[in-house]
Amino acid sequence: MMGLPFAVRGGFSDGRASLFLKLLRSYTRISVQEMNPNMRKLEYAVRGPIVQRAIEIEKDLLKGEKKPFDSIIRCNIGDCQFAGQIPISFIRQVTAVACDTHLMDSSAIPDDAKERALRFLKSYATHILILNLTFVFHALTNRNLLLKQGSVNSGAYSQSTGVEVVREDIAAYIEQRDGIPASPENIFLATGASEAVKFILGLVATTKGGSQRAGVMIPIPQYPLYSATLSEFNNYQIGYYLEEESGWSLCEEELEKRLEEAKAHCEPRVLVVINPGNPTGQVLTRANIAAVLHFAHRNNLLVLADEVYQHNVYAPDRSFYSFKRVLHELGGDIASEVQLASTMSASKGFMGECGFRGGYCELVNFDPEVRAHLYKCLSARLCPPVLGQLAMDVVVNPPQPGEPSYKQFCAEKSQVLSDLAKKAKLVENLFNQLPGYHCQPVMGAMYAFPRLELPPKAMRAAELAGMPVDTFYVTKLLEETGVCVVPGSGFSQKPGTFHFR
Amino acid sequence: MMGLPFAVRGGFSDGRASLFLKLLRSYTRISVQEMNPNMRKLEYAVRGPIVQRAIEIEKDLLKGEKKPFDSIIRCNIGDCQFAGQIPISFIRQVTAVACDTHLMDSSAIPDDAKERALRFLKSYATHILILNLTFVFHALTNRNLLLKQGSVNSGAYSQSTGVEVVREDIAAYIEQRDGIPASPENIFLATGASEAVKFILGLVATTKGGSQRAGVMIPIPQYPLYSATLSEFNNYQIGYYLEEESGWSLCEEELEKRLEEAKAHCEPRVLVVINPGNPTGQVLTRANIAAVLHFAHRNNLLVLADEVYQHNVYAPDRSFYSFKRVLHELGGDIASEVQLASTMSASKGFMGECGFRGGYCELVNFDPEVRAHLYKCLSARLCPPVLGQLAMDVVVNPPQPGEPSYKQFCAEKSQVLSDLAKKAKLVENLFNQLPGYHCQPVMGAMYAFPRLELPPKAMRAAELAGMPVDTFYVTKLLEETGVCVVPGSGFSQKPGTFHFR
Repeated sequence: MMGLPFAVRGGFSDGRASLFLKLLRSYTRISVQEMNPNMRKLEYAVRGPIVQRAIEIEKDLLKGEKKPFDSIIRCNIGDCQFAGQIPISFIRQVTAVACDTHLMDSSAIPDDAKERALRFLKSYATHILILNLTFVFHALTNRNLLLKQGSVNSGAYSQSTGVEVVREDIAAYIEQRDGIPASPENIFLATGASEAVKFILGLVATTKGGSQRAGVMIPIPQYPLYSATLSEFNNYQIGYYLEEESGWSLCEEELEKRLEEAKAHCEPRVLVVINPGNPTGQVLTRANIAAVLHFAHRNNLLVLADEVYQHNVYAPDRSFYSFKRVLHELGGDIASEVQLASTMSASKGFMGECGFRGGYCELVNFDPEVRAHLYKCLSARLCPPVLGQLAMDVVVNPPQPGEPSYKQFCAEKSQVLSDLAKKAKLVENLFNQLPGYHCQPVMGAMYAFPRLELPPKAMRAAELAGMPVDTFYVTKLLEETGVCVVPGSGFSQKPGTFHFR
Repeated sequence: MMGLPFAVRGGFSDGRASLFLKLLRSYTRISVQEMNPNMRKLEYAVRGPIVQRAIEIEKDLLKGEKKPFDSIIRCNIGDCQFAGQIPISFIRQVTAVACDTHLMDSSAIPDDAKERALRFLKSYATHILILNLTFVFHALTNRNLLLKQGSVNSGAYSQSTGVEVVREDIAAYIEQRDGIPASPENIFLATGASEAVKFILGLVATTKGGSQRAGVMIPIPQYPLYSATLSEFNNYQIGYYLEEESGWSLCEEELEKRLEEAKAHCEPRVLVVINPGNPTGQVLTRANIAAVLHFAHRNNLLVLADEVYQHNVYAPDRSFYSFKRVLHELGGDIASEVQLASTMSASKGFMGECGFRGGYCELVNFDPEVRAHLYKCLSARLCPPVLGQLAMDVVVNPPQPGEPSYKQFCAEKSQVLSDLAKKAKLVENLFNQLPGYHCQPVMGAMYAFPRLELPPKAMRAAELAGMPVDTFYVTKLLEETGVCVVPGSGFSQKPGTFHFR
């Protein structure tokens, strides 16, 4: 509001004047109409209204209120420890000793966990160590001295891109996974993979004064982080449908068609692929990935590959192929040109360490200057949580044969993965036996996305309630059975079809 | 790039055609020119070129290269543990046991640290507990059973706004600090205070199609997170100068003047105040804060109060007054109208736990709908690091008299704070004794921002080197002595004056 001219201030002498002044001068706080419209539009169904309602019901239950069930079963989010999965001991031991280095003396922590924490803290604290080389010499021969001096600990900021040894370990992990080189310079750590996604999509954010909105292709159904981030950056969302009937496969013609349609509205810049799929659970074949990369190459698209479920493949006839590996194997111009960003997380896989907020992103074929600007932007948020980086480090560099924790680590990891595989099969079979449900094979990730066919009566009831059919269904499910799932509309779906995750 | 029309594809038969086709069809990756210009423009001096150079020198030293010094002394960042400060034991013990709950059995962790971790994990895992009420009953009477079952641990996502018990503890801390009510509903946890700042300024981000750029007033000198975030959101920066001669005080006339000037270029929406000051170390008086709040009220500005140094006040004649407290005490329309967001961090104060990335923000007088949209946006990033939340919890709810860790905690805290106070005085006195330096009193925070007066010869040398005078000076300082500081230009300063932090 503009300042009030002095002439106006002195120009009245009756009650109307003071009212007028008061109206003009009263403080106006930011209202919904005036706030950033991109933030207003943003939707994130995984923690949306249905989950808020589940929390309310939980509170009612705690107060002793009677319901047809004793507890809420929350299936809204890919959070395995939340659902009772026991953490991998080694990750917890390493992070615990990094928190409190006095535990270097404790018999409760195995020696390899201590070594792992020490290696991390040493890399992290190089700058401190070189302050006094004599001290370092003693320290390296007597780790307890070093740690007790408090000179090495997890309380300082790390480099913005992440602790050096972690980026090296990630590069080694990727090399081993793909059989092709990887460089720590192209890897940055993030506060969960979500933060990495935001930085990559930020590169093509639509800005005031920019000529066109940047278009970003995302699968439908999709993980709503993508639609939310596109809202935030005011990008044009180009949804491409996954083909449910053929196990949620990704069809090149569909990509072409949606891209052509979108060109009237935006400048397409990025193609997002989620593999293994969330919420759909499919695992792409090598041939499919190759076709996607050719498509991206023809159309000048940066490929953002969400590969956070790379450890979660259950179908015996599928394996995880990284986009980077397939890109490399294609050779020629494609291999050296297509820009690729691949994300990974400590929150999924066998570890499920969501609370640590560990994740990373590898950049392939990025313009070095663009990468430098990206890393500069990372520096303004200082660094990702240091213990999340350490959890990520253990995931990419687990105990090796011969180390004290090797056997237990392997046993815990395979237990979790075989439990997840059993549950995937169980859920798929169960839904396909129930009338009105159809569920595609759950090949990977952590979700099933069954299709609902509701009787006309239910359709009408939903219409009367003013809700999309799937929202109506999952609301009923929650209120009557306490099971909390997310309606398909939160992930988007083909018009006329209804699902939940 | 548009698809190539078929007619053109067939229209040539010579070498030029294939070159033409190749040029048209070759893949174009995102270049610096095409990337988001807001990310390109962003600058963050605290980790800028001078720090990059310091890292290079460190590597040279490690390789055995000879320099006039043995090590780099990095004074570029407010990271006390990095500079050798020993962490507060209790924070480390509580987080360690939350990492590895088997430590509940270890004598290395005191009982009150175990209790604190358990209380946190119980609040955090309410949803898991109610799955099985019989189990909970046993669990509450036998914590080891509960924890060994792995049902309560720090691996799950928390609520997006943060663990309930932490928000309650923060509210209680604020109530005790200010003597006025605070509600957990108005508090959200963040990945360091930096993330909270980004969410608040995001509310007024300049968007495509919006009528005017939103103006945000920030102090000059400022902490460059603010200028970086304004670049990112394409906001109009309205710098107001702090008055160096009177101890970097904040002058109402200066605010008025800069606001009036800016109105031609933007719509002013937010006023940022950093108290205690970064990089300037001043502590605002109560009267000064009241004047700022009146100014904000008259001009419809949201006040973003960066209060992360609230534990760092050293001047005997100053105390920390929160903006919220002064706002409340002003009463009337102002108290009930002015929108205020106040940030706090686990990274500063006596704890210096930068690596945990813990922080919070309290909202005052926000429109409930706007708050709901803000919290919805928080949910898309899932949650802040859980152990960072726990570190923040210990800061606001430290050991109490009679608890086993009380004495040690108090001793460690007062040791750190008295060391910081001594150093503040030492630095201030030292600079004021050196010719060519002037340093205002360091009343609080963690920095001195001395002013340099360089001889004309040095001024000319800087000009010849094509550098701002202060950048030239700190570069020489780094190369010749190994001391790394940040030039004043990174924080902005009055034209013609030169400083460093």
